[in-house]
Amino acid sequence: MAEDKLPTRAEDFSEWYNQLVVRSDMADYAPVRGCMVVKPYGWALWENITSWLDAEFKKTGHVNAAFPTLIPMSFFEKEKEHVEGFAPELAVVTHGGGQELEEKLAVRPTSETIIGHMYSKWVKSWRDLPLLIVQWGSVMRWELRTKLFLRTAEFYWHEGHTAHVSEEEAKEEMYRILDIYERFCLEEAAIPVLKGTKSETERFAGAQITTSIEAMMWDKRALQSGTSHYFGDNFAKAFEIQFLNKDNKLTFAQTTSWAISSRIIGAMIMVHGDDNGLVLPPRLAPIQAVVVPIFKNDAEKEKVMEVADRIFSELKAAGIRIKMDDRDNVSSGFKFNDWEMRGVPVRVEIGPKDVEKGSVALARRDKPGKEGKSFVSQDGLTDTVKNLLTDVQASLLKRATEYRDANIHNVDNYEDLKNVVKDGWGFAYWCESNECEKKVKEEAKATTRNIPFNQPETEGTCIVCGKPSKRKVYFAKAY
Amino acid sequence: MAEDKLPTRAEDFSEWYNQLVVRSDMADYAPVRGCMVVKPYGWALWENITSWLDAEFKKTGHVNAAFPTLIPMSFFEKEKEHVEGFAPELAVVTHGGGQELEEKLAVRPTSETIIGHMYSKWVKSWRDLPLLIVQWGSVMRWELRTKLFLRTAEFYWHEGHTAHVSEEEAKEEMYRILDIYERFCLEEAAIPVLKGTKSETERFAGAQITTSIEAMMWDKRALQSGTSHYFGDNFAKAFEIQFLNKDNKLTFAQTTSWAISSRIIGAMIMVHGDDNGLVLPPRLAPIQAVVVPIFKNDAEKEKVMEVADRIFSELKAAGIRIKMDDRDNVSSGFKFNDWEMRGVPVRVEIGPKDVEKGSVALARRDKPGKEGKSFVSQDGLTDTVKNLLTDVQASLLKRATEYRDANIHNVDNYEDLKNVVKDGWGFAYWCESNECEKKVKEEAKATTRNIPFNQPETEGTCIVCGKPSKRKVYFAKAY
Repeated sequence: MAEDKLPTRAEDFSEWYNQLVVRSDMADYAPVRGCMVVKPYGWALWENITSWLDAEFKKTGHVNAAFPTLIPMSFFEKEKEHVEGFAPELAVVTHGGGQELEEKLAVRPTSETIIGHMYSKWVKSWRDLPLLIVQWGSVMRWELRTKLFLRTAEFYWHEGHTAHVSEEEAKEEMYRILDIYERFCLEEAAIPVLKGTKSETERFAGAQITTSIEAMMWDKRALQSGTSHYFGDNFAKAFEIQFLNKDNKLTFAQTTSWAISSRIIGAMIMVHGDDNGLVLPPRLAPIQAVVVPIFKNDAEKEKVMEVADRIFSELKAAGIRIKMDDRDNVSSGFKFNDWEMRGVPVRVEIGPKDVEKGSVALARRDKPGKEGKSFVSQDGLTDTVKNLLTDVQASLLKRATEYRDANIHNVDNYEDLKNVVKDGWGFAYWCESNECEKKVKEEAKATTRNIPFNQPETEGTCIVCGKPSKRKVYFAKAY
Repeated sequence: MAEDKLPTRAEDFSEWYNQLVVRSDMADYAPVRGCMVVKPYGWALWENITSWLDAEFKKTGHVNAAFPTLIPMSFFEKEKEHVEGFAPELAVVTHGGGQELEEKLAVRPTSETIIGHMYSKWVKSWRDLPLLIVQWGSVMRWELRTKLFLRTAEFYWHEGHTAHVSEEEAKEEMYRILDIYERFCLEEAAIPVLKGTKSETERFAGAQITTSIEAMMWDKRALQSGTSHYFGDNFAKAFEIQFLNKDNKLTFAQTTSWAISSRIIGAMIMVHGDDNGLVLPPRLAPIQAVVVPIFKNDAEKEKVMEVADRIFSELKAAGIRIKMDDRDNVSSGFKFNDWEMRGVPVRVEIGPKDVEKGSVALARRDKPGKEGKSFVSQDGLTDTVKNLLTDVQASLLKRATEYRDANIHNVDNYEDLKNVVKDGWGFAYWCESNECEKKVKEEAKATTRNIPFNQPETEGTCIVCGKPSKRKVYFAKAY
């Protein structure tokens, strides 16, 4: 598993990532073009992500449900922009039970259409609203160039779909969800994100407003990490989601949709990982601490294992997700490398001398080598480890925030922008025209990420065309 | 929702079921042939089912993972019986991203093949075993005649897939899982089940042994409610899952697979439901108790709601899954019918007189009318309700067990068997030949359900051909 070194990030970031995902046991390539297998270790991480989000959605009144994986092709054509956006990416079922189908079915790329169809059946009165439904599962988009977690033909996500009586309520919902996504990234994934509105060209197919959270990876490229859309009555009109309002007047519902996908795992890898492997945030890590007993012979083993087993039990009883590595066919050095590759936040080493001295060695994953090593008493070890986990979590967020802030540059000159986005993000006034956005994309290979909600009080001029401009936008190369 | 009465079960059991599933808000028909939408109320029930099972699987060392939804068609052909069993039921993707695919892909009907393929990559040494992986999700089988939850083209389930070093270990796993399934049915779903071995013709395609749990529905038809299979080395040979054993000899792994699907929800409906609607077992019910405040005017409302809110909060704080029905646009009678339709185990009614007397009325769903009604003090209500929920749970299991036992008949005469299976199950000696099984299927329209593990100590003669026979089998009409 951890025999050979990874390429360093500086040598080849893309290859570092590709090898790391597989060697850390997160995922594997599937024998189906563009698809992945999420291995148990990766899926356990995904379960920690999903349970936090699911709990937050439930606290805010959302419920889960399940809609079919297959969607009639005709459904996509009901919303003009939606079909243009998704038709080229569909996987299509043409045969079922040995017969050619009368109507072809798409493996869902997203479920606005089929959920819109059902909502039109379920919604009759204002009393039926809001409808706040989330679906957990996978979707399929036929991608040509794939990368595990970041871009695969099939990926895992939740998709929230809500219908409301008014524009105001629907927009509130869109922002409420974006706030949950931001809190998830900050508190759980330790990833600093920037909230804002997407440009017209970067909007979801069929949306009136798309908001996003954007994160900076180690290579300074941006990753859109979650989106929340407001559709106005676009989908309600396409699917006839209508209700009698309090004045008994037939009214179109206002709808939203939103998602975070398994690509957030890719983000965690690319934000926190180092040249030795993954660095997982303690709040989400499937294994928060690993106990590695160290011994050279049976006599030592007996003494060490007695203490190691006791410590393991104590930490486990305190609710720490802990693993005992008592493998007898690999060396301690191999084990250290192995758990570093997998990003376990804290390693507890216990050798014969520790048994005598009543101590253990703790190694924190975010600070490799001597800097992250401490020798502590076995007394009160549970609290020591808990505090260390809290500290690792906070340090990861701090480090990522400082790194990001140091690499976002205020620019007010187009030549500077072109230079800055080679190795960072540019933050600049922009007139919000498609034309200027396109020019930056072609000449600087950077896209607009989002227009942050909080803007400077002053106004400026568009960095491309020089026209007066009210809002600044982030420009960056992106995944 | 509950305006018109359901047909009674005696009048038309099938129509009673079809209407009930929709009117209780469990599920709806999808606009895709043979598929269903599981509505939030039904999905909340499924989540309670899955979280119990997931916890039990994790306690016994299993981990979750995710494999692709699409499987190359060639994979099915690697195991002869498997392809014969599943080929006629496949939904087939022929196009992706606007191009015809070089190799067609099936939407998974079950995942032995693709998981077998991955296991062959992952398993090298006896140290890599056992592999104990569970996948939660949906699968697709192109069914012609569908019925919500019981038989739909797409359905929800978990599928466990394990690989072991020896036949003994693999068989132990198969039985361990069947025991978990039995405990789930008894303790959670309040459904008595019979464990046993399926006949050769009723086996899963590719299995050497299929074990099942079988339940009796209200109409006395059988429902196979869960299965656990032992494959020997069939799939290991087909997919080359080989390992070096402790003697350094290349050996084929022994594999199992097992599943419970969303059809268990259909079983709960058909075992416990009555002519007024669903009757859900308290341990799994999404709503365990509903508070219905009763008032005629604003003055009464104020008094009643104060107490109702307090009681709601107390019961909620005690961990009871509780709902307040304070709708002001429907009558109390409508509410009672509505919650009966949805099978909520306990209803807490509070009117102005209850406020004066410090009492509430409790109605238990399993005993309709006066028999199930009690008037109790508001003091200690949490314990009263908790005890009542425990009692409802136990009563449901007791009633279903008595009903089943009263409708299973020991028979030793072929003519009796033909009569008995018209309205019950027959339990009879059988020589285990396909020929005699086929005869019963053709002449009595009954199939063998399973051969129970615990057999009478005596031996007998086959009920069809009269040959000496060692084991008895259940014969029944089945879903």
